[in-house]
Amino acid sequence: MGKQRLVVIGGDAAGMSAASKVRRDSPESEILVFERSPHTSYSACGLPYYVGGLVDSAEELISRTPEAFRDKYRIDARVRHEVVEIDTRAARVRVRHLENDQEWWESYDQLLIATGAVPFCPEMPGSRAAGIFGLSTLQSGIRLRKAVDEDKPKRAVVVGGGYIGLEMAEAMVIRGIEVSLVTRGDEVMETLDPDMGALVSEALEDVGVTLYRGESLEGFETSDGRVSAVLTNQRALPADIVILGMGVRPNSSLAKRAGIPLGLRDAIRVNDRMKTRVEGVWAAGDCVESLHLISRRPFYVALGTVANKQGVVAGTNLAGGYATFPGVLGTAVTKVCKYEVARTGLHEKDLRELGFEFTSTVIQSRTRAGYYPGSGRIAVKLLAEKKSGRLLGGQIVGEEGAAKRIDVLATALHAGFTVQDMINLDLCYAPPYSPVWDPVQTAARKAVKAG
Amino acid sequence: MGKQRLVVIGGDAAGMSAASKVRRDSPESEILVFERSPHTSYSACGLPYYVGGLVDSAEELISRTPEAFRDKYRIDARVRHEVVEIDTRAARVRVRHLENDQEWWESYDQLLIATGAVPFCPEMPGSRAAGIFGLSTLQSGIRLRKAVDEDKPKRAVVVGGGYIGLEMAEAMVIRGIEVSLVTRGDEVMETLDPDMGALVSEALEDVGVTLYRGESLEGFETSDGRVSAVLTNQRALPADIVILGMGVRPNSSLAKRAGIPLGLRDAIRVNDRMKTRVEGVWAAGDCVESLHLISRRPFYVALGTVANKQGVVAGTNLAGGYATFPGVLGTAVTKVCKYEVARTGLHEKDLRELGFEFTSTVIQSRTRAGYYPGSGRIAVKLLAEKKSGRLLGGQIVGEEGAAKRIDVLATALHAGFTVQDMINLDLCYAPPYSPVWDPVQTAARKAVKAG
Repeated sequence: MGKQRLVVIGGDAAGMSAASKVRRDSPESEILVFERSPHTSYSACGLPYYVGGLVDSAEELISRTPEAFRDKYRIDARVRHEVVEIDTRAARVRVRHLENDQEWWESYDQLLIATGAVPFCPEMPGSRAAGIFGLSTLQSGIRLRKAVDEDKPKRAVVVGGGYIGLEMAEAMVIRGIEVSLVTRGDEVMETLDPDMGALVSEALEDVGVTLYRGESLEGFETSDGRVSAVLTNQRALPADIVILGMGVRPNSSLAKRAGIPLGLRDAIRVNDRMKTRVEGVWAAGDCVESLHLISRRPFYVALGTVANKQGVVAGTNLAGGYATFPGVLGTAVTKVCKYEVARTGLHEKDLRELGFEFTSTVIQSRTRAGYYPGSGRIAVKLLAEKKSGRLLGGQIVGEEGAAKRIDVLATALHAGFTVQDMINLDLCYAPPYSPVWDPVQTAARKAVKAG
Repeated sequence: MGKQRLVVIGGDAAGMSAASKVRRDSPESEILVFERSPHTSYSACGLPYYVGGLVDSAEELISRTPEAFRDKYRIDARVRHEVVEIDTRAARVRVRHLENDQEWWESYDQLLIATGAVPFCPEMPGSRAAGIFGLSTLQSGIRLRKAVDEDKPKRAVVVGGGYIGLEMAEAMVIRGIEVSLVTRGDEVMETLDPDMGALVSEALEDVGVTLYRGESLEGFETSDGRVSAVLTNQRALPADIVILGMGVRPNSSLAKRAGIPLGLRDAIRVNDRMKTRVEGVWAAGDCVESLHLISRRPFYVALGTVANKQGVVAGTNLAGGYATFPGVLGTAVTKVCKYEVARTGLHEKDLRELGFEFTSTVIQSRTRAGYYPGSGRIAVKLLAEKKSGRLLGGQIVGEEGAAKRIDVLATALHAGFTVQDMINLDLCYAPPYSPVWDPVQTAARKAVKAG
């Protein structure tokens, strides 16, 4: 592939993974990246730890600056530049420099849309008051950390019981702030089944978070333009600071306006090579729709690890090579102080909706041999198809060393293993790492009996 | 299956797993277990941690006593009883009560041989002196702990650079004893390739162990019947206590005398259902030969986790059910203070001997996101078949959180995955657990390029 011009919209995980891959595989390509924030290639997943003070400076979250991309990779990454329009017929994008509001057109041979996701922020009374924060870009994290450092809030209310909600609750606990968490669900973590979610709810309470379950956000009370309370359908919760973790949606409005077909939840529809349905236009990361490998249906996930993989696949193809992204399992993990939570595949609600008949098995075990110091609790849940015994999903809640075991379940899901197959997997064993039957195999043994 | 009489020889992992499974599946069976030591169902793998003082009492290593088997499971487990002869024609075994030397015959309908392994103890000058210890039964661990507690040795010499050698070196370090370790190999851990073994050698030196590599044991100096030094082909190493970790061999002499066919390294040959070639005689655990799933050749491994699995398979079949044990990958893990070591599949030496053409890839990464507190080093090595890219083996050396990742590689080996397949595995990611590309996937990406 000769000299061609690649334009990338979005300078984080997917965009810069793709750009870097194109640079390696196609030394002659011209690569231009437009990023509306002031930063490239930062770890959005690291923001809760920066806010919580486990990470000292925001710079630590940046893996490569625009200068590094320019000097080491000959990638022209322009921050504070927003693409405001895509003209797919003329193969060009209109760019606005956010510092001087100048606009101009840039042409492309190939375009990659990697605009990520945006947090869901409901418009409701008081929602624009000071002291209310979302968490998305590095900038948003810097603002939140500054508020915590300088305003020294005493009472935080976290709205949302998903990953961001849990991680921000942890961050506030670490900062010594009194934390309340509001969630609509009967338990936190609605990507787990309620029985496993209940274990996470318990873990949150154990670390000192006050939980308000089954309550929905209705607005905010303010005082002098600052938030003073969160209003739910049940109560007013006094708050010096509010953090919204109500999920994200694909940032696809630009693509939509350009007539690029969207799919589930308005995520951009791509083929296995990360190409959209429009010639010359590709997309990757938190703005695209994925295939769920177990349901075999469209799925939306916003996760750095998926975005990086998709970016590499897009970059390989953009450089004239060949690569496909097979799909996802919805694998995810989080930590709340000493508790670990992980899940993969489908959960009961999914399975019922899809018409699967399945067995559901939960076991309690230990993270290490029972006699070994630091041995902690672990609960493993397996969902398997009736009759065939095929693994369909898994969930883990436990103490140190519990969560990473989800990767064995994810790998088994990729392989199409049955719970019977899993019993005799030759997993490693020594007392510091596991009981003699690893908890995932103890669960598989019970699942076989249930099948 | 009606009332029948099962005799089990050996009351630890394989024997008692099988006995327990038979009890569950066949309530009417009579189950008689003969165990020559005073204990049933103890964790031999836990002995180094008992000797090192991380585990307070030997009782903690016992998962079930003979009394528990008798009262809760109606299993007649007789300790201090040794089977001294098997008469397969008459379907009976001769039993000796070790406390009064009485002998008698017991008949069986089915016999399970679960005699385990015995440590290799070379006969050489001084080898019977006091202060020289092997580690095999719970009794041997109790003797060693007592010696360390009471004699307060200052200088320990560990002979052997395998799992037991490393774990005992760690135990002695924890006890504040000056430790030397003698190994024949150029590096410790000959089940790893030398480049990865070198990392383990470094780790041992880092925790204060003095290593003598490429030296072989030639004998012992003694003084008043006590060991005073270990003699190698290069030097005399002063020692107050000596621990031998020179590997084990299958304890198959009883089976051999009974004419039961043996295989590799004199391990008892069994079919996939754990049946020997003699009618009514089964075998499981450290005394049997296994199939290596990658080399597809006989393999010998002595590990509690394999013994338990084989015990359950044997028990299922003995109770009239159907189960097979597919084979092993040689997965193993150990810990030396803050360093973790794991391996699975074939290593370079195996691959060369088997005529495989392969690529070999090593990467350095981190156990957590680089910016996350406690992020440690991890080295991952992958061996993959040339052209096909099929994964053939993996090795990991690193700090906290490194080793359990070997289970992803083991599961991938069971699945027959290529390194290309591994790149897009949907493994979990959050900064406390992994960089955005898990180290095993970083290794897979490099391996694909090497392929």
